[in-house]
Amino acid sequence: MLDADAFKKIVESASFHRLIGLTLESANAASGVVVLRLPYDPKLSIFPEAGVYHGGVIASLIDVAGAVACGLPLGRPTPTANFRVDFLKSPAKIDLIATGKLVRSGKTVSVADVEITDDDGEVYAIGRGTFSTSAAFKAIEAGAESANR
Amino acid sequence: MLDADAFKKIVESASFHRLIGLTLESANAASGVVVLRLPYDPKLSIFPEAGVYHGGVIASLIDVAGAVACGLPLGRPTPTANFRVDFLKSPAKIDLIATGKLVRSGKTVSVADVEITDDDGEVYAIGRGTFSTSAAFKAIEAGAESANR
Amino acid sequence: MLDADAFKKIVESASFHRLIGLTLESANAASGVVVLRLPYDPKLSIFPEAGVYHGGVIASLIDVAGAVACGLPLGRPTPTANFRVDFLKSPAKIDLIATGKLVRSGKTVSVADVEITDDDGEVYAIGRGTFSTSAAFKAIEAGAESANR
Amino acid sequence: MLDADAFKKIVESASFHRLIGLTLESANAASGVVVLRLPYDPKLSIFPEAGVYHGGVIASLIDVAGAVACGLPLGRPTPTANFRVDFLKSPAKIDLIATGKLVRSGKTVSVADVEITDDDGEVYAIGRGTFSTSAAFKAIEAGAESANR
Repeated sequence: MLDADAFKKIVESASFHRLIGLTLESANAASGVVVLRLPYDPKLSIFPEAGVYHGGVIASLIDVAGAVACGLPLGRPTPTANFRVDFLKSPAKIDLIATGKLVRSGKTVSVADVEITDDDGEVYAIGRGTFSTSAAFKAIEAGAESANR
Repeated sequence: MLDADAFKKIVESASFHRLIGLTLESANAASGVVVLRLPYDPKLSIFPEAGVYHGGVIASLIDVAGAVACGLPLGRPTPTANFRVDFLKSPAKIDLIATGKLVRSGKTVSVADVEITDDDGEVYAIGRGTFSTSAAFKAIEAGAESANR
Repeated sequence: MLDADAFKKIVESASFHRLIGLTLESANAASGVVVLRLPYDPKLSIFPEAGVYHGGVIASLIDVAGAVACGLPLGRPTPTANFRVDFLKSPAKIDLIATGKLVRSGKTVSVADVEITDDDGEVYAIGRGTFSTSAAFKAIEAGAESANR
Repeated sequence: MLDADAFKKIVESASFHRLIGLTLESANAASGVVVLRLPYDPKLSIFPEAGVYHGGVIASLIDVAGAVACGLPLGRPTPTANFRVDFLKSPAKIDLIATGKLVRSGKTVSVADVEITDDDGEVYAIGRGTFSTSAAFKAIEAGAESANR
């Protein structure tokens, strides 16, 4: 059974998250709300001159924020089945905040919504996904075990 | 008017693509088919022990393959409006191939499908997105200009 | 330029809406919020014994609520480009309320969210879609003209 | 265990399908391909003058074709978790064919793709959805039982 601290350790020790610099700011199992932060780094942009984030980076935040929002109340990681991302406006040269919220907790699948904002709450993208609550997520079991120690 | 070579230069010079090592193998404006390759690197995994790709990396490939499939016949970049990704099985420690196909070319939006496979054609994920054909994509104009010289 | 009353006339005079009994309760251009009501009728169920709504009926409400939410501030109908619907729980033998909200108004596409609830606000399904704001919607021009007289 | 004939009976006896006139032309468990037909009827249009199908009708076909494609190999109905529909062009005053194909069969969820075409194979809309393979679908159990007799 993983708690919020364990989820934080897993998220922040994952290889791809270390590559892009993703951190978990808060995770509340009772409210089902998860907040991630991604500091701006030019390497995450399409071209540094404009500094606009690559859409794949934004999609990555949605994937993670949704997965943690669905996994936290169960105390274990829940693999992503699918998600949709809508890009509303292009964030450039700013830190991104991803706020994931559990919409429905189910026996086989859960649903989460994610908003990508800046620190002032302006919304740049929105995501919605389905996460498998009945499947094991072997890919991060090793990470989960070490994080739970 | 950007041709396939210019799209290749843009894709391969983009900051985030250099970070993850993405290359454009082929792009055919007539058929509307685009093929990207991503060599496996442990830093793109969730945890290197399992070597399973982070979902955000797969989503990034879908974003790019769809955008190039829609932009190529127009000769200019087309910003992503939205996409959906379905994860079918988890690829681990292999190169990924993203094949984007133009489904519908429209005055304001185009639609593309993308398959994420290995070199043998086994499908790991599928994506479908809408790309804006009437909006300018300022974020990569600088890159496009330099790629087109 | 169609106002809320004209949208109500269009929605309620459309053939398929008359078939299923859909009504527009309110539409506010300033807030971007649209509320539809669908009284329960056994013919809208899969099988009347259980009385559970057919998923296509719920999807129809999402399509319409999203389209009106996006079209109302522009004063003209906006054709649906795409939408996603997530079924959270099965409504049975109750009236359905569809509340559409404009999320982003764009030059070429707008985005709307829709919740399907009962009169007490319990959520049964959620939808999110993209609607074309630059394309004419010839299919309902005749209806729009007669509604605007 | 429901076979193709039983699925045909269920589909064609469902209340909402009788309302719109939907029939199941073929369903092949081995290939995972399901074909539905919807004869044109003005009551399924937005306005009969133009005769353009309501988007909700098209979404209904996607819902059903995907659900049967996923349920057929299991021999039981699979409730829809979510789907996305992309409208490519507007069909008017023609019969619609919905061809559903099983993309991935899973223990908890399956994925299906659906194309909406005319009899000549011209594509008007495409759908992709996730269907729950581990959940019971009580809403149509009564119908399934009577169809299986």
